[in-house]
Amino acid sequence: MTHNDLLPGELFTRLRSACHEDWAAYTRHTFVRQIGTGELPQACFRHYLGQDYLFLIQFARAFALAAYKADTVPDMRHAMRGMTTVLDTETRVHISFCAGWGLSEPEMAALPEHPATMAYTRYVLERGMAGDLLDLHVALSPCILGYAEIGAWLAADPDTKRDGNPYLPWIEMYAGDEFREVAREEAAYIDDLMARRGGEGRFQDLVKTFRQATQLEIAFWDMGLHPPAG
Amino acid sequence: MTHNDLLPGELFTRLRSACHEDWAAYTRHTFVRQIGTGELPQACFRHYLGQDYLFLIQFARAFALAAYKADTVPDMRHAMRGMTTVLDTETRVHISFCAGWGLSEPEMAALPEHPATMAYTRYVLERGMAGDLLDLHVALSPCILGYAEIGAWLAADPDTKRDGNPYLPWIEMYAGDEFREVAREEAAYIDDLMARRGGEGRFQDLVKTFRQATQLEIAFWDMGLHPPAG
Amino acid sequence: MTHNDLLPGELFTRLRSACHEDWAAYTRHTFVRQIGTGELPQACFRHYLGQDYLFLIQFARAFALAAYKADTVPDMRHAMRGMTTVLDTETRVHISFCAGWGLSEPEMAALPEHPATMAYTRYVLERGMAGDLLDLHVALSPCILGYAEIGAWLAADPDTKRDGNPYLPWIEMYAGDEFREVAREEAAYIDDLMARRGGEGRFQDLVKTFRQATQLEIAFWDMGLHPPAG
Amino acid sequence: MTHNDLLPGELFTRLRSACHEDWAAYTRHTFVRQIGTGELPQACFRHYLGQDYLFLIQFARAFALAAYKADTVPDMRHAMRGMTTVLDTETRVHISFCAGWGLSEPEMAALPEHPATMAYTRYVLERGMAGDLLDLHVALSPCILGYAEIGAWLAADPDTKRDGNPYLPWIEMYAGDEFREVAREEAAYIDDLMARRGGEGRFQDLVKTFRQATQLEIAFWDMGLHPPAG
Repeated sequence: MTHNDLLPGELFTRLRSACHEDWAAYTRHTFVRQIGTGELPQACFRHYLGQDYLFLIQFARAFALAAYKADTVPDMRHAMRGMTTVLDTETRVHISFCAGWGLSEPEMAALPEHPATMAYTRYVLERGMAGDLLDLHVALSPCILGYAEIGAWLAADPDTKRDGNPYLPWIEMYAGDEFREVAREEAAYIDDLMARRGGEGRFQDLVKTFRQATQLEIAFWDMGLHPPAG
Repeated sequence: MTHNDLLPGELFTRLRSACHEDWAAYTRHTFVRQIGTGELPQACFRHYLGQDYLFLIQFARAFALAAYKADTVPDMRHAMRGMTTVLDTETRVHISFCAGWGLSEPEMAALPEHPATMAYTRYVLERGMAGDLLDLHVALSPCILGYAEIGAWLAADPDTKRDGNPYLPWIEMYAGDEFREVAREEAAYIDDLMARRGGEGRFQDLVKTFRQATQLEIAFWDMGLHPPAG
Repeated sequence: MTHNDLLPGELFTRLRSACHEDWAAYTRHTFVRQIGTGELPQACFRHYLGQDYLFLIQFARAFALAAYKADTVPDMRHAMRGMTTVLDTETRVHISFCAGWGLSEPEMAALPEHPATMAYTRYVLERGMAGDLLDLHVALSPCILGYAEIGAWLAADPDTKRDGNPYLPWIEMYAGDEFREVAREEAAYIDDLMARRGGEGRFQDLVKTFRQATQLEIAFWDMGLHPPAG
Repeated sequence: MTHNDLLPGELFTRLRSACHEDWAAYTRHTFVRQIGTGELPQACFRHYLGQDYLFLIQFARAFALAAYKADTVPDMRHAMRGMTTVLDTETRVHISFCAGWGLSEPEMAALPEHPATMAYTRYVLERGMAGDLLDLHVALSPCILGYAEIGAWLAADPDTKRDGNPYLPWIEMYAGDEFREVAREEAAYIDDLMARRGGEGRFQDLVKTFRQATQLEIAFWDMGLHPPAG
């Protein structure tokens, strides 16, 4: 079974191929590998978790933007479900997950946003505003589809340590059926948008968006490796 | 009991006073009066209902825009609730109400948007995009607060005919506690936004927005009085 | 020589065909015909001129939006030239033209925007914001390309009265080489955008945008026929 | 003579005080100090110059956004002048300046945008879109006003080396009358916007925007210190 089987979107497959070096640097990042081996310093993980909370809030805004940008009622409902999922389900899962790591919601809400968090989130929002719904979803896709791929890879990788790996619940969350289904839907949705709003003429610009978004995901992992002192 | 008691928002009260002629032309429009007396031709009401369905879809986009524009998580949740209310509750109420008037959802969804429908909805969306959350909500407010005032006025007006008035359910919907509560919250919300994002320097611009939005509501009633032939 | 020779844009030609009834209602509107015969009441023309001034200001914002939405430096320069043309050249031509009709700039700037003016301008801005640069230019195109077609048609029409027609300078302005060149460029530009950002899948949505924009142009002429009393 | 005399804007002075630590970290950054002493490695400066070219293109879009967001014709003209200045004058100055450093325009245009470049530029654009014209200009101001302060400080600082300092033309550009005048106007403009669209209730949010933008400027200098290998 290949990752393509997991996430068989046609546009996503083409975008990933076009940016395979950046994609590998993102999905096989040191931060990710050390989650797999359990070697990641816990201060790094905590730093990442706090910023990821702030990330989710901006991500919910991206789905609100998608609802605004929708041309059809089904697109609006799709975006509204996305927003509700992020703001309710995912944020709650995140908060309860973080509680296990000693991070409370008010603590996370009070954190200053790191430049790397601002960078990716504002990039997605701005690209989506300047472009259309397809540009927006292509900018979003490295996050959703990348995490699903990372989860699936780590779950299958023989180097992944299971016993005593404090990050196992994180791996299992992103390798789980539920998240894989979210990713599958996202891949299908960008194929649908490509059919409705795309055309081969757009492909190179979409590659650029996908690459830049992927590079900003790499910078987000880089940030995770450098927790603030103290 | 005055309308101010019903809707005691301070900013709303000031905006309405500043535009009292347009406000009266909107809330005491012939279309409204004929709803009260039951004299409105049913073709006019049906024409209005169909366009109001298309209006609601765009209105839901305005709440999506508010969620995008939110600076805080409570503002995001507020907007998300507004969007859900419009797209789920209100649209469903509208659809079942319209069914009683012989209008099915697919029929309404297939109607071309009338210029008057495009005018008000795009005005709100565009004003909200160019300005901030306060500009957006001031542009929205004549709709929510005006309908509550119209409902309350018709319900209390001695000229309103109750027996055999086919529009009585419409009056009761907008005069009801539930809708009044929606309006009360909206009035409180724009006061809150004025405190957080306003300043006396903005008042004249907000009056202009409120007046233009009110004029576009008047044009919407005018449209209602002119159903397409056939 | 046909209008297609004048404005040979491929996308424009297809859009116009797809909406030929609305397009005819716009370009052969009573307001237009009476400009040709000179029978249009001067109060109507003055009403139109004042609103057209307010229209131009919003139109300049549409080019600013195009500059914001640009993906490339040439697109940015193209939009910036459009904005400069509207805000400097066209507005100045308009002001000096209006002076001949007894309308001063401060007078026009103080006019309230008519609902029909708000409707078309906000529709263009909002469609352009929600969609992409192609959606924006398709929404703009009925104005630029329609006026060029109207000018060319009136200039060639045997019913057009030349002697003593107070509207002859208006006809000559829009039939002139300079404006035809603006229209030719716009037609070529939307073809270029269609190649870069389009795809057959978008065509029906673009038709919808073109039709709605054309209907709002019709409503603008309707407004012209109904000057305010006094 | 203090910097306040140079840039006497009231809002800017308050914002800078509220963020004085971040402001100092930005304006007295190692990159800046090494420009003053001439010790900055030339590879760092070249790296910065290339990214600054890409920065300017996005900055021009921010002025286009300001023109779109303008409520008045003078605000539109102000923004259009800003856009023209950035896209024509500043970009040309930058290109000819870079030519002296062996960087051609096509070379710079082909550079990938660094995450730090994307971060600040998209932050400004997105903050400006979500908020209003005041939010947009407060997000822009650390760039314009910071560079003027840096120029003035370096020009006056006894540690600044003049003989044989390859960066002296850069210092003189930002310390010069022309750029100081640009900064003075920007400071006056945000005061004007604060009077028209502000209110004390907005101050804390504006501080947040100013601080985040300043932090992204710090990250931009950090990037300058780390040129790509090779």
